Amino acid sequence: MTEFELIARYFTRPVRERQGIGDDCALIDVGDRTLAITSDLLVEHAHFFPDVDPAALGHKALAVNLSDLAAAGAQPRCFLLSLAVPRADPAWLDAFSRALFGLAEAQGCQLVGGDTTRAPRIADQPGPVTVCITAVGEVERASIRGRSGAHAGDDVWVSGELGDAALAVAHRLGVVQLTDADARACGQRLDWPQPRVALGVALRGLVSAAVDVSDGLLADLGHVLQRSGVGASVRARDVPRSDLMLRVESELQRRCVLAGGDDYELLFTASHDRREAIEQAARDCCVAVTRIGSTTAETGLRLVGERGIDATLRGYDHFAGAPAAY
Amino acid sequence: MTEFELIARYFTRPVRERQGIGDDCALIDVGDRTLAITSDLLVEHAHFFPDVDPAALGHKALAVNLSDLAAAGAQPRCFLLSLAVPRADPAWLDAFSRALFGLAEAQGCQLVGGDTTRAPRIADQPGPVTVCITAVGEVERASIRGRSGAHAGDDVWVSGELGDAALAVAHRLGVVQLTDADARACGQRLDWPQPRVALGVALRGLVSAAVDVSDGLLADLGHVLQRSGVGASVRARDVPRSDLMLRVESELQRRCVLAGGDDYELLFTASHDRREAIEQAARDCCVAVTRIGSTTAETGLRLVGERGIDATLRGYDHFAGAPAAY
Repeated sequence: MTEFELIARYFTRPVRERQGIGDDCALIDVGDRTLAITSDLLVEHAHFFPDVDPAALGHKALAVNLSDLAAAGAQPRCFLLSLAVPRADPAWLDAFSRALFGLAEAQGCQLVGGDTTRAPRIADQPGPVTVCITAVGEVERASIRGRSGAHAGDDVWVSGELGDAALAVAHRLGVVQLTDADARACGQRLDWPQPRVALGVALRGLVSAAVDVSDGLLADLGHVLQRSGVGASVRARDVPRSDLMLRVESELQRRCVLAGGDDYELLFTASHDRREAIEQAARDCCVAVTRIGSTTAETGLRLVGERGIDATLRGYDHFAGAPAAY
Repeated sequence: MTEFELIARYFTRPVRERQGIGDDCALIDVGDRTLAITSDLLVEHAHFFPDVDPAALGHKALAVNLSDLAAAGAQPRCFLLSLAVPRADPAWLDAFSRALFGLAEAQGCQLVGGDTTRAPRIADQPGPVTVCITAVGEVERASIRGRSGAHAGDDVWVSGELGDAALAVAHRLGVVQLTDADARACGQRLDWPQPRVALGVALRGLVSAAVDVSDGLLADLGHVLQRSGVGASVRARDVPRSDLMLRVESELQRRCVLAGGDDYELLFTASHDRREAIEQAARDCCVAVTRIGSTTAETGLRLVGERGIDATLRGYDHFAGAPAAY
């Protein structure tokens, strides 16, 4: 069973709120305002290594939620933190909380509540560090966007550069050997992602659909296309990547850029007549944006200039590919 | 380090929102409305036994959050669920989700988002089931209450009966031997707590402070007193308890009723002139409420008719009493 099948089968009911399951954020109307709410769960061994830098973890746990708010065009407001740790280690907690508050304060997002608990030992091993953050932001009701608003003929855009986070994972797993400097550079993208909050807000009213790239470009674009009932043609070679990535051999490069997760860039669709405004908004935020293709009335995702999509090029799914017993 | 010390040391910053860390809910103003938000994390081995009935877990995970909303007088609106499970077991997920939605629908609280992940194995053992729910409700701005509003001379009230949940834990740990019927009756209170949502809303404008009894009467009342800067005198024998509890030997009875957690009743303070209105509100909700004492200008908590507070009579704290290495 895949994660999406699990959610569809057990946790889907008709929703009265504006947007619910399947979008980056839930949107709820409160009087004449609309809030975006999102929640992410990070579990040791599944989402980060046991020797994770606690500062990077504190930063990233909030960053991934702010990235969901950015996709929704929400201005972050506050968050709740639930934390399970095997022991109350002052150095660990100090590093974790400083980095968490560092990002929170930079983004004007206050910690207002949550829960802490001790992770009990399992088979004489420390229980897993678990971080669940729920972030709340405010959207502009007139420019609400989700994953379902793309129209055939829209441009497909992406911010920043893709794939370095996946390359860092490949390096840490021994799939590729990078120089120390290169490993540090892409490790920074994996461990300290910068959520595109300002860009997300600046794009209000300009885009038809948006998502953050957390599962990988093809997977996240696939979600938008499926929800919007359109297809897309993407020029694989136009997908922006770092100079470091350009030095990696082509098959790994292709996998990282097209299917790598954890980039936390924004992927969005917009009509042609928004090009200039989008480029201006991005310049104002000091973020690069690149057009990588366009949506089509014909469904499906075509990679232009490639010989077809490798069957293994899909987003990471926590339940897919598990042994039959799972 | 206790859980409260950990939160105070690492996770406390000045908060601009109405209420934050230390209250049952964070309260945030959205235009002319006010939302209450709360989050609770339940971890296998810490909060429930590995052989937990998945239906009871699904119910309780939401119930504890709705109980926090009830304390704040909030009308539940929606929730987000983050779930880590070691495997996608259809029978388990079906029971869990049905009970979760059963309570959610009964309380008009919709699932709008969240996250699922697989809990990785640890030392060849299944990773712990972890449930993090964030619930959102709406409060009436004119009747906002927290833990800090009690005045000297207020009545102290509690809803329902206390201690049966703790008695069920004592039975399951072998501390006491109950008959099967008695074990079932108090087990029901532990596993299927009924959050006092309707009472919480009905008490709007009538109470000066409120909290739900999750850590135990003395601990939760202690939080209210500390935050309000008052003391209280409580008539221990007036604390309401079940007929089943009355048959338990007196020391265990006293511990369960005064210090047992997981009751999810409402504990609140109110001025004398609200007595009639409170009793009427409770009758309208078909819930019993009992006056158990009153608040005092002198700080500290006095148990009337007891020889003093046993030092071990305190709420459960996840980090207290851990080995020095923790």
